[in-house]
Amino acid sequence: MKIVIAGAGFGGLRLARMLNNKPGFELTLVDRFNYHQFQPLFYQVATAGLDASNISFPLRKVFQKSRNVRIRLANIERVDAANRQLVTDSGNFYYDILVLAMGAGTNFFGNANLERHAFSMKSTVEALQIRHRLMENFEKAVHEKDPDQLQQYMNIVVVGGGPTGVEVSGAIAEMKRYVLPKDYPELDFSRMNIYLLEGSDKVLGTMSGKSSEQAGQYLKELGVTLLTGKQVSDYNGSVLECKDGTAIPTATVIWAAGIKGHVPGGLDGLSLQRGNRIPVDPFNEVKGFPGIYAIGDLACMATDTNPNGHPQVAPVAIQQAGNLAQNLLKHGLDKVLWKPFEYYDKGAMATVGRNKAVVDIPKPKWHFGGFLAWLVWMALHLMLILGVKNRLFVFLNWLYNYLTYDQSLRLIFKEFHKPEQKE
Amino acid sequence: MKIVIAGAGFGGLRLARMLNNKPGFELTLVDRFNYHQFQPLFYQVATAGLDASNISFPLRKVFQKSRNVRIRLANIERVDAANRQLVTDSGNFYYDILVLAMGAGTNFFGNANLERHAFSMKSTVEALQIRHRLMENFEKAVHEKDPDQLQQYMNIVVVGGGPTGVEVSGAIAEMKRYVLPKDYPELDFSRMNIYLLEGSDKVLGTMSGKSSEQAGQYLKELGVTLLTGKQVSDYNGSVLECKDGTAIPTATVIWAAGIKGHVPGGLDGLSLQRGNRIPVDPFNEVKGFPGIYAIGDLACMATDTNPNGHPQVAPVAIQQAGNLAQNLLKHGLDKVLWKPFEYYDKGAMATVGRNKAVVDIPKPKWHFGGFLAWLVWMALHLMLILGVKNRLFVFLNWLYNYLTYDQSLRLIFKEFHKPEQKE
Repeated sequence: MKIVIAGAGFGGLRLARMLNNKPGFELTLVDRFNYHQFQPLFYQVATAGLDASNISFPLRKVFQKSRNVRIRLANIERVDAANRQLVTDSGNFYYDILVLAMGAGTNFFGNANLERHAFSMKSTVEALQIRHRLMENFEKAVHEKDPDQLQQYMNIVVVGGGPTGVEVSGAIAEMKRYVLPKDYPELDFSRMNIYLLEGSDKVLGTMSGKSSEQAGQYLKELGVTLLTGKQVSDYNGSVLECKDGTAIPTATVIWAAGIKGHVPGGLDGLSLQRGNRIPVDPFNEVKGFPGIYAIGDLACMATDTNPNGHPQVAPVAIQQAGNLAQNLLKHGLDKVLWKPFEYYDKGAMATVGRNKAVVDIPKPKWHFGGFLAWLVWMALHLMLILGVKNRLFVFLNWLYNYLTYDQSLRLIFKEFHKPEQKE
Repeated sequence: MKIVIAGAGFGGLRLARMLNNKPGFELTLVDRFNYHQFQPLFYQVATAGLDASNISFPLRKVFQKSRNVRIRLANIERVDAANRQLVTDSGNFYYDILVLAMGAGTNFFGNANLERHAFSMKSTVEALQIRHRLMENFEKAVHEKDPDQLQQYMNIVVVGGGPTGVEVSGAIAEMKRYVLPKDYPELDFSRMNIYLLEGSDKVLGTMSGKSSEQAGQYLKELGVTLLTGKQVSDYNGSVLECKDGTAIPTATVIWAAGIKGHVPGGLDGLSLQRGNRIPVDPFNEVKGFPGIYAIGDLACMATDTNPNGHPQVAPVAIQQAGNLAQNLLKHGLDKVLWKPFEYYDKGAMATVGRNKAVVDIPKPKWHFGGFLAWLVWMALHLMLILGVKNRLFVFLNWLYNYLTYDQSLRLIFKEFHKPEQKE
């Protein structure tokens, strides 16, 4: 059975690993990057705490000993369902089963100005670009004479109070406290402001009330200016505007306020759900497209407990991949025997800064925060990172950062002149 | 005394560190990067053995506790000697003494085609670009149907048989032997060729005959095709041509065949020496430009033993910086008391692969190679890298690579869409 897996994130990679070297399956794993990305730590790459390589794992290394997985670096263009092919810029791939696992990208809600000027953080490369911009801002600030322009460099705005927004604004606040004044003695960091803008009335809205409140308190302690009830209306690269008239001069906007599913072309007649998600049945099969499955952030499986689909988090993607793999392994295409997907919610966590994190556990219902939560957060993320070497290097970087109060990777590796390649 | 140091390589950084926190000196250190680069290991970044961050050290971190060094990220444009200013794209810097320490860049000898299509490796970012190209080649090769195009992807040409050319071609040969066939089981690596082209009749021409011969033997053992007596005439991105008619189809040419000094504009009337080097007196003062000094690769100090200037290597830059700093510290601008520069040649070394290196020591005249030379090479480079953390991470990467026969950083972090910044 030829299975094409589009996307090597948490879901796609899990599925490929479970079907790896299993007789009867021929897999093609397609991704636009040649490595698996550990998304939960993008924000630490952006804030110079971790190296991009620490949270990236070469796909070909994962499957070096595989006899049935082939890997293709390609941009996915569309699905040709009539001919059962996935069409990419590196050729077409025939499938018996196609699994769409491309996840979600940044949703700018159609605002072209925001898309042009604001940073998103949905890939390692984007995280690196944020790091470069943060550093460049201060390098420019040291010789800036215009006070308005200077203030734009000194203001950082993060939009979106979910885990990503909370984590990145907290990490920038720690740079402001521990690193930047030592690096730039010429600048007055009392003038540096980190704004976190959230549309609702609180951060971490999907977590418990206690976690939400505690995270807000942590952000305050770190010096992040939390502005709730703010809807961004526009950004021209210099001033961010909100619907209520608030205007913040800033050269750097990090947009963590929404995601939308990476839906490929060709799925005509599909009625996409909110956030560009593909409706699937309890076995993750795309409604109206037999043989095509969607898992993870991209999929929307309406259930009694989750009428708008499951939360778009890694555990859902991993568990859906696991369920699909088990069904295929046990029963092949005999779908009547398949087990429907059930989500086991292990809880949620977010970290704000050193010794500052929040954890919610659903059964038994329990919340805790502070140093213990922070240790649990670190231990869990270390466990989940792919590769012994990556784990060691992340651990050493964390240890170094913890002991020295220093995010040492303040390096601008921007590409410039690049030799042209004939195609 | 206001001292402007242009360039934070081995020479410029050494000078700044020696004058750091010394009363009477106000320093401005200008570089186009915000970090010091450890050039001798660029080739390991290019071949996925080391992370770019491992060999880069943030300049602001070096001088965090400094009271008299300010750092500017800037592109140097020209010297305004009449007004004693260094002109950059981030403002002008007034100097009493200007020290030009910008080193040398790649010399394509005026061949625009080569400059356009070939890779140079004179910065960390360029090393990363080579890494990306090497990986991309094989990703393209796996779905390439045209045998000619496929062969272009499978042929790598390194031009220049100096230490850089020898080291990078050896490292690529080790990738071919240990890593690539496991990563790309679909490709036939007996068709992969690594050519090292050298204009003279041997590699490592500046080292002893024994070292030269042994390095040639090592390259052969590793499967590098060494072609001596080859002068490159042109390269169109697909086929590299030599003056003797040799034509090699290849998508990747790494150019390590020549360097030229990064001479700033404004030094009118200066008669540059071979390789674009600035003539200096025995105190490194630029001839005809009082108060302007040049050190390192950029400087050409003709002496009895080195009538065409010293070798363009790190130890010369470091020693010239040291001599200049000592003179300034001891005697200020009272140049009659200054000590002229004397080069102490500690020897030369180059590494070809695991357990394969050559070392020449001049006094007593001694050559050795093999495992011992390789250990000495590693120990010395570890010692010279700036920063305890970098040293640890380089060591761990080397240990990992040695034990697993794996260069694990096979990651393509290429920039794409980047938010625009208003200027």
